Amino acid sequence: MSADIRRNSAAVKIFDTTMRDGEQSPGAAMTLDDKVELGRILDQMGVDVIEAGFPAASTGDFEAVRAVGAVLTRSVLCGLSRASAKDIERCAEAIRSAPRGRIHTFISTSPIHRKHKLNMSEEQVLDAITASVTLARNFTDDVEWSAEDATRTERDYLRRTVEAAIRAGATTINIPDTVGYSYPDEYRAIFEDLIANVPGADAAVFSAHCHNDLGLAVANSIAAVQGGARQIECAVNGLGERAGNAALEEIVMALRVRGEALHYHTDIEPAHLMRASQTVSRITGFPVQYNKAIVGKNAFSHESGIHQDGMLKHAQTYEIMRPEDVGQGATSLVMGKLSGRHAFKKKLEELGYALSDNALADAFHRFKDLCDRKRHVFDEDIIALVDDQIAHADAAIQVSRLRVVAGTEGPQTAEIDLIVRGQPVWKTARGTGPVDAIFNAIKEAAPHEATLELYQVQAVTEGTDAQATVSVRLSANGRSASGRAADADTLVASARAYVAALNRLMTLQERMGGANAA
Amino acid sequence: MSADIRRNSAAVKIFDTTMRDGEQSPGAAMTLDDKVELGRILDQMGVDVIEAGFPAASTGDFEAVRAVGAVLTRSVLCGLSRASAKDIERCAEAIRSAPRGRIHTFISTSPIHRKHKLNMSEEQVLDAITASVTLARNFTDDVEWSAEDATRTERDYLRRTVEAAIRAGATTINIPDTVGYSYPDEYRAIFEDLIANVPGADAAVFSAHCHNDLGLAVANSIAAVQGGARQIECAVNGLGERAGNAALEEIVMALRVRGEALHYHTDIEPAHLMRASQTVSRITGFPVQYNKAIVGKNAFSHESGIHQDGMLKHAQTYEIMRPEDVGQGATSLVMGKLSGRHAFKKKLEELGYALSDNALADAFHRFKDLCDRKRHVFDEDIIALVDDQIAHADAAIQVSRLRVVAGTEGPQTAEIDLIVRGQPVWKTARGTGPVDAIFNAIKEAAPHEATLELYQVQAVTEGTDAQATVSVRLSANGRSASGRAADADTLVASARAYVAALNRLMTLQERMGGANAA
Repeated sequence: MSADIRRNSAAVKIFDTTMRDGEQSPGAAMTLDDKVELGRILDQMGVDVIEAGFPAASTGDFEAVRAVGAVLTRSVLCGLSRASAKDIERCAEAIRSAPRGRIHTFISTSPIHRKHKLNMSEEQVLDAITASVTLARNFTDDVEWSAEDATRTERDYLRRTVEAAIRAGATTINIPDTVGYSYPDEYRAIFEDLIANVPGADAAVFSAHCHNDLGLAVANSIAAVQGGARQIECAVNGLGERAGNAALEEIVMALRVRGEALHYHTDIEPAHLMRASQTVSRITGFPVQYNKAIVGKNAFSHESGIHQDGMLKHAQTYEIMRPEDVGQGATSLVMGKLSGRHAFKKKLEELGYALSDNALADAFHRFKDLCDRKRHVFDEDIIALVDDQIAHADAAIQVSRLRVVAGTEGPQTAEIDLIVRGQPVWKTARGTGPVDAIFNAIKEAAPHEATLELYQVQAVTEGTDAQATVSVRLSANGRSASGRAADADTLVASARAYVAALNRLMTLQERMGGANAA
Repeated sequence: MSADIRRNSAAVKIFDTTMRDGEQSPGAAMTLDDKVELGRILDQMGVDVIEAGFPAASTGDFEAVRAVGAVLTRSVLCGLSRASAKDIERCAEAIRSAPRGRIHTFISTSPIHRKHKLNMSEEQVLDAITASVTLARNFTDDVEWSAEDATRTERDYLRRTVEAAIRAGATTINIPDTVGYSYPDEYRAIFEDLIANVPGADAAVFSAHCHNDLGLAVANSIAAVQGGARQIECAVNGLGERAGNAALEEIVMALRVRGEALHYHTDIEPAHLMRASQTVSRITGFPVQYNKAIVGKNAFSHESGIHQDGMLKHAQTYEIMRPEDVGQGATSLVMGKLSGRHAFKKKLEELGYALSDNALADAFHRFKDLCDRKRHVFDEDIIALVDDQIAHADAAIQVSRLRVVAGTEGPQTAEIDLIVRGQPVWKTARGTGPVDAIFNAIKEAAPHEATLELYQVQAVTEGTDAQATVSVRLSANGRSASGRAADADTLVASARAYVAALNRLMTLQERMGGANAA
């Protein structure tokens, strides 16, 4: 961004809620380690505020928020809390781990939510706002208040709630489009109205939080900024409940590409966008669609002869941004059979990994093994290999050997050796296909109740000898967890992904065991 | 939609370009049969205009446009053409197959395109517009003209081009945001300006065509309508070059859900949206992301305790539309081991399939076979089975037998029997995994030059005995083609998907062989 644009434009804060609203997406539950890894990337990328979870929901959520806070260097750590003293106190405790912390408290304001969800009168809701914000301000001077379902709230009542929140000390006022119902003109008008008419509005930062149910989340967020908002809440890859939140990468690039027309800027360094997108996709097991704006595989690719011809003549004829601006590099050949341990370690550092000596030795061994099996080894292969190793270390159940016989003429059989909490177990099973046979064998070896919700395979790099990444999602008792594994053999990756999901599901169940809050 | 809303609102035409702009998405090439199948669905759904291809591009494109036209009952058939006599004449011939046909001709108007793509002066472009539209009107009185890269065109020059097109007889004027550059206020203002200031503007229908590079395509389309446009060009699943076009399903539902605030309506029956989405996903091999608005797997699902609680109390607390409105039904158990041939035929008819007696016998046989292997057979399983059968009939190469041995201890081997143009071929090969071994064996049996661009597996239904759908994309000589296959055995599906992609790639190469137009 040129210095001119920055000087002549207003700053818009980026509030990332991938780990809170994003995690509410069915099947997107994250572990503490996932959140810490993502927190580092968001901090490095320049996100202003990171909402890392809902501390009162469970001990696991509380610990994850604390752990994210401990690695932040410049982002503000934020935790969500309902309008209750217990929630707010727990949140205040969790955010203390970071240099700067924010308490985000909310209550529903719309008539439909007041009646059916809260069973509270208008006055009762106003009292709850005053009490919750006042309490939060006892712990920190950075307090955000949200009017849940604001866009379906009577306008005059919404003004009164915002006034109450500001009077009690809220420094950020968030006006969420909770059900993804608004359109840009309408959403912008709400901000213009509140900022013009609520006493004390000039002392607060107004914030947009949009859901994408009608495909309008990014446009609504930008319209809010045009109406006076100076914070946008969003999530990497547009993750979030139902159709998700506004996508962080789209908002950042829309404000950047059109910076001379829309006079706003953010502090995000866009070169990190691809890495953030890939990390979120790996953690959740949610693939990014090919034509996803900014971070999709096809976002910068052209097929038609007409466009190719134009591109060759002048790149700008069809491109308004360059893939390298957002970190979409050409897949690069990097390492081979002859690469030594030192070069491998350097490459890992370049890719952002700092491994212990033991982990490095293990990764190097697996890298050499991969070089024997695969002609070209790309950055993506190394990332998959190391990520896979990080995910599987210290797991309760591990795969040690697998053998499968399959084909058009049955039966399909799988023979598996597992280490279950330190004990070797060997089982054989049949199935309707090789994957079914493997999963049946794992169930025999480590009996458990879980339903397979998703099974998916993607090639990590191109070519027939590509490593495959398998994603598996399992659910039990209303909780679900994803596992991923990469291997040149799809079936081996399938077994390890299933076991990874199972390990994670057991961890989540322990974490959630105590409080089934919220 | 209530009769009141329809009476008190303006009609907006839906122009579907899934088969033209959507097909330009790298890897989304469609066969003639794919287009006919999709054309039937779009026609049934109530799409006003279907752009089925670019007749001058190749004989295959020409034939596909003709074939789509032959099955339409209420949609207008449209073909694209550059501003050349040869293109327009070819297009005129192709659209004659339908009851009503439209010629869509375009030329670039922006300075960057005039200079680098066309190398033409302002006056030369104006002359080309007059000549091309005049010629098109000789063939049909339904002529659409597009100003390519309109949003980066000088406003006064854009007015002159639109005036020239209208004067020459264009009945629809399309103002595309070719590079996905605009934002809603700006895009709306262009329409307001043109409609107010171009002589004769009231005689034409103005049209929006938006790309999603900055995540704003749907909002821009709606803003255009607010500015006076009465046609929106869009594609199912937002398919299209780079980040794609505005998503048809999002536009339809945004106008429907907010019909009382945005006073516009379309003639689309939303209950067909899911079927259209799934068909496009299957044809292209492009998965739909989980949190895709309207048609994603998660678009209507809730995870967090807070929301679930609200949902239980009153569905409308978090839902602005019902899944059944857009054809997202609960996965329903339908058929089993004891279902007879008559019930199976009836079920197929319900699902929209009319098979010949032979094809029905074959499908029933495969259905019975599936019942033996899978406990619960769902609608989706039957759809996958029949689609698979349709896709593989009459193919040049067919898989007859497969046997694979794989696991953590190599070597991985595959043994395959193919029928290649009527001749049985048997081969064995090794690979770095079972899939690699299978693909190597196919290459041995039917030698070809093609690069694997994509390999992906998705479970069709839930549970460990789910049928798997495998998508494979191959490319050679700048062309790419996708193949899909479903089977309870992932490896069998992999072999058949690879062969399907290969068959399709060969067909495309024959089709494209003559003219590498555009």
